[in-house]
Amino acid sequence: MKHQAHLFVPGDWVTDTLQVPRASAAHLNKVLRYPDGGIVTYTDGYGRVGGGRWVDSAIERGPERLKPRITDLTIAVAPPKQRDRARFVVEKAQELGVAKLIWLNTDHTVGQPPSDSKVDAWLTGALEQSQGAWRTQVSGPATLADLDDPILCDATGRDFPGDDRTATATVAVGPEGGWSESELAGRPTVSLGPTTLRVETAVVAAAALFLHRQRQGDSIALPEALA
Amino acid sequence: MKHQAHLFVPGDWVTDTLQVPRASAAHLNKVLRYPDGGIVTYTDGYGRVGGGRWVDSAIERGPERLKPRITDLTIAVAPPKQRDRARFVVEKAQELGVAKLIWLNTDHTVGQPPSDSKVDAWLTGALEQSQGAWRTQVSGPATLADLDDPILCDATGRDFPGDDRTATATVAVGPEGGWSESELAGRPTVSLGPTTLRVETAVVAAAALFLHRQRQGDSIALPEALA
Repeated sequence: MKHQAHLFVPGDWVTDTLQVPRASAAHLNKVLRYPDGGIVTYTDGYGRVGGGRWVDSAIERGPERLKPRITDLTIAVAPPKQRDRARFVVEKAQELGVAKLIWLNTDHTVGQPPSDSKVDAWLTGALEQSQGAWRTQVSGPATLADLDDPILCDATGRDFPGDDRTATATVAVGPEGGWSESELAGRPTVSLGPTTLRVETAVVAAAALFLHRQRQGDSIALPEALA
Repeated sequence: MKHQAHLFVPGDWVTDTLQVPRASAAHLNKVLRYPDGGIVTYTDGYGRVGGGRWVDSAIERGPERLKPRITDLTIAVAPPKQRDRARFVVEKAQELGVAKLIWLNTDHTVGQPPSDSKVDAWLTGALEQSQGAWRTQVSGPATLADLDDPILCDATGRDFPGDDRTATATVAVGPEGGWSESELAGRPTVSLGPTTLRVETAVVAAAALFLHRQRQGDSIALPEALA
C-alpha cells in the first residue's frame, strides 16, 4: 500500500497555501518522490485536518474539518534513562492517542526528560506516521502531588482496572526502581499484569488498557461504581 | 532499589553449581560488581526458577520450584523493516509474557525476520530484566494458513475484543501496508483503537489487551458467547 503523506502544519492557517518545514518538504520531494499535485492530508495537531494537494513544495488547501479528541487520558511517567526508550514512550503515546504526557520526578527517578527539540521531532514523526489529528501535549517535570488524582501502576496493585472506580484520566508509571513507600501511601494502585515491565512497556500497556476502557465508557465503570 | 540479578541458565541443571555464559558472568562481576556470595535468582526459561548464590563466577544452587505458565497467547507478526522495531517486538513480547511469537509472511510483508542470534540475545535480556520464568518461543516464518484460527488486527474490525467470541489464543498483526483482501476474507478481525499503530505498538497493545482478557478468564468471554 502506498502511504499518502500526512503533514503536521502548526499555526492558524490564514493563507490558501501552507508552507511546511524544510525537512518535511525535502522528505516528500526526495524520499517519497511525491508528485506535484499529489494528494496530501494535513493537521494542526489540535483536531483540524484537511485534504489538499502538494504544489510547488507547499500545501494547496482543500476541504477541512475538526475531528473530536478521542480521549482525555493523561500518562505521567518517570523518564527512562536510555534515549531510545524515552523516544519510544513519546512516539507510542502519540500513536495511541494519549492526550497528555507528563514527565515525573519521583523519589527514585534517575533519568532526565529528553530535550524539547527531540520531543517535538518524535511527536511530529509519530503524528504524521499515524495520520493523527491531535498532538500529545508533553510537559513537566512534575511531581505526584501536582497530578489530578493519579492511579499508580504498581505490582502490588489489583489487576487492571485495580482500585480505580471512576475511570480515572491520570495514570502514573514509576521509574525502574519503583515507587517509594510514601509515594504509594494513600494512593490508588493498579497492576498491569503479573510480569515486571520496563517503563516504556508499562506506558504502552497502560495506554492500551485505559484507552480501551475510556472507549467503552460507563459500560465498564458503572458496575464497579455500584458495587 | 538495587536490582537483584536474575539469570537465564538453559539446560537440565544436573550439577550443584551452574555455569553461566561468559557475557553474563562479566556483566555481574564488572558492571554490577556483584559480591561473591550475593543472592541471585535463575531460570531455565521453562518455568523452573531458583534462588542461589553467586560464588566464583557461577551459581551455587538453592531452593527451586516450577512456576506455572501464565498465558498461552500466541502473537503472529509481520517483521518490521527496522532493526530496533523488531527488537522491540521481541523484547516486549517477552516482558509481557507472550507464550509464542511467530514471524509472518503476508502478501504485503516487506521486512525480514531478525537473525536467530539477535533474537536469542534480545529474549535473554528481556527475560532476565523482567525476572521471568518462561521464555517466549520465537519461530517462523509462517503464513496465515499455518496458524490456528487467528484473529487479525485491522482498522476495519470491531473494537477489541472484536469478532472474537472464544478468547482466542492467536492474534495476528499485519505489516505497515496492511492485510490483502484475500487475507481478510472470512477471517475474524479486531480493532485495537481508532488510531493507526505501527507494528511494534500494535503488538504491545494487542498483548496487553488479550493477556488481560485471558487473566479475566470466562468472566469476559461468556456474556458475548451467550449474546
